[in-house]
Amino acid sequence: MTQDKHGLEQRVKQGFNAQGFMHFIGATLQKVDSGYVEIMLPYKPELTQQHGLFHGGVVATLADNAAGFAAYSMMSPQEQPLSIEFKINLFSKAKGNTLIARAKVLKNGKTIKVCQSDLFCISEDGEYPCATALVSVIAIEEN
Amino acid sequence: MTQDKHGLEQRVKQGFNAQGFMHFIGATLQKVDSGYVEIMLPYKPELTQQHGLFHGGVVATLADNAAGFAAYSMMSPQEQPLSIEFKINLFSKAKGNTLIARAKVLKNGKTIKVCQSDLFCISEDGEYPCATALVSVIAIEEN
Amino acid sequence: MTQDKHGLEQRVKQGFNAQGFMHFIGATLQKVDSGYVEIMLPYKPELTQQHGLFHGGVVATLADNAAGFAAYSMMSPQEQPLSIEFKINLFSKAKGNTLIARAKVLKNGKTIKVCQSDLFCISEDGEYPCATALVSVIAIEEN
Amino acid sequence: MTQDKHGLEQRVKQGFNAQGFMHFIGATLQKVDSGYVEIMLPYKPELTQQHGLFHGGVVATLADNAAGFAAYSMMSPQEQPLSIEFKINLFSKAKGNTLIARAKVLKNGKTIKVCQSDLFCISEDGEYPCATALVSVIAIEEN
Repeated sequence: MTQDKHGLEQRVKQGFNAQGFMHFIGATLQKVDSGYVEIMLPYKPELTQQHGLFHGGVVATLADNAAGFAAYSMMSPQEQPLSIEFKINLFSKAKGNTLIARAKVLKNGKTIKVCQSDLFCISEDGEYPCATALVSVIAIEEN
Repeated sequence: MTQDKHGLEQRVKQGFNAQGFMHFIGATLQKVDSGYVEIMLPYKPELTQQHGLFHGGVVATLADNAAGFAAYSMMSPQEQPLSIEFKINLFSKAKGNTLIARAKVLKNGKTIKVCQSDLFCISEDGEYPCATALVSVIAIEEN
Repeated sequence: MTQDKHGLEQRVKQGFNAQGFMHFIGATLQKVDSGYVEIMLPYKPELTQQHGLFHGGVVATLADNAAGFAAYSMMSPQEQPLSIEFKINLFSKAKGNTLIARAKVLKNGKTIKVCQSDLFCISEDGEYPCATALVSVIAIEEN
Repeated sequence: MTQDKHGLEQRVKQGFNAQGFMHFIGATLQKVDSGYVEIMLPYKPELTQQHGLFHGGVVATLADNAAGFAAYSMMSPQEQPLSIEFKINLFSKAKGNTLIARAKVLKNGKTIKVCQSDLFCISEDGEYPCATALVSVIAIEEN
């Protein structure tokens, strides 16, 4: 592993670990690369809607956050990511023992980075896609 | 209060209380009317992103859920709501001691109900809007 | 009419008239105010989809453009509007002799202006809403 | 070419040719496969915004329409496609002599088909991506 890749991972992990909400729901950062991030979330009953599936808000949270950190991975050290908007299509039941978000930067714009997050459920039947999102992340200068 | 309005409230409350995720984050149903729902969420550090603001995923969760139950309030007893997609613009910092989602049904279609959710933060400085969302909710027949 | 309001109208009209596509489809600017714009489009068969309704792309065009100019109305003279993304819900058949887009700025951010466009059809039966959109417009400095 | 593929192409072409708006802007159907459609649009000044680029509404029109026909290609003969909503990110200047939309069905749901449209510009410098869209298409029974 090069110093740069290690530094990148450290920076993204630090940002991720600073989010109270990720700890609270039990999500972990699985993979980090330049312009790519993967987040994993094990099932627990506290994360469900009325039919025992992962709540749509949980799915959206993972989609948004994976995109935010994928964008962050392409920012300069003094920049911070802020999602300004996103859209998600929840097209299959989010059922399974694990939820995974895989996000990549589609367009690495100077001000706005456009990201795509793909969501997958892992169940006894294997892995299947359950949602997809487009996320616009703005780079803001830290004070 | 008419019997109908009472029955409506009971039905929506039941649906809301069956969601593990709402308990987990500490959200409560504040108001229910035909085509209108309000959800309230007090601040706690477990709900934050890296700068201590309400996490974007939390804001999206409230937006999505208020819309889902606003749609549900206009469904027949044998129908269940399922968000098929939503889009949210997070346009101000979600900072404050309380987050509120107010959702209304814009179009009460037979299959798809289109809802708008407006999000507000309450802080020492008063209440201000922080996000807005458009949510498509499908009515599915219960088995 | 104050000088300022007149100047505002002139600036927005100039931008509108510089768009070949608005002439081509036959759209006209109806109202301009600070943070508000209305565009009108008469029906013609060239604007339809396979069932003789206004094409979804035409509805989206009006939604996007009204928002862009509503945002423009709040920009400084050296700034130009650019829609970076939008989302539209097409919830009723776009049927009638006229299509109208009414857009307002929801959040007048320094970099990003978030706008809402509401679309209406005018037919023999009166005016009814047919679509709604959320549009993010960025202000770019002219060279 | 199998009979089925030929029949599929004929059905989609028929739908496409029935749209006045496609003729008007000069768009042509380039490729049709099960769950995939490509639409091409040559540049003309009538399709531009104030800086001579393809108008955002034109880009959105192509995105929406390619998705609609990609969805249509997976429908049964008595079903018709109707876009109920879409979201588009316009991330690069739509500059060039040709605009291309390539759409595929991400989720072939019974009622709702979720599609992704990728938009490309062809200029002297080659082909480059300029926008991406997520589109929800509902299948409605013809009367």
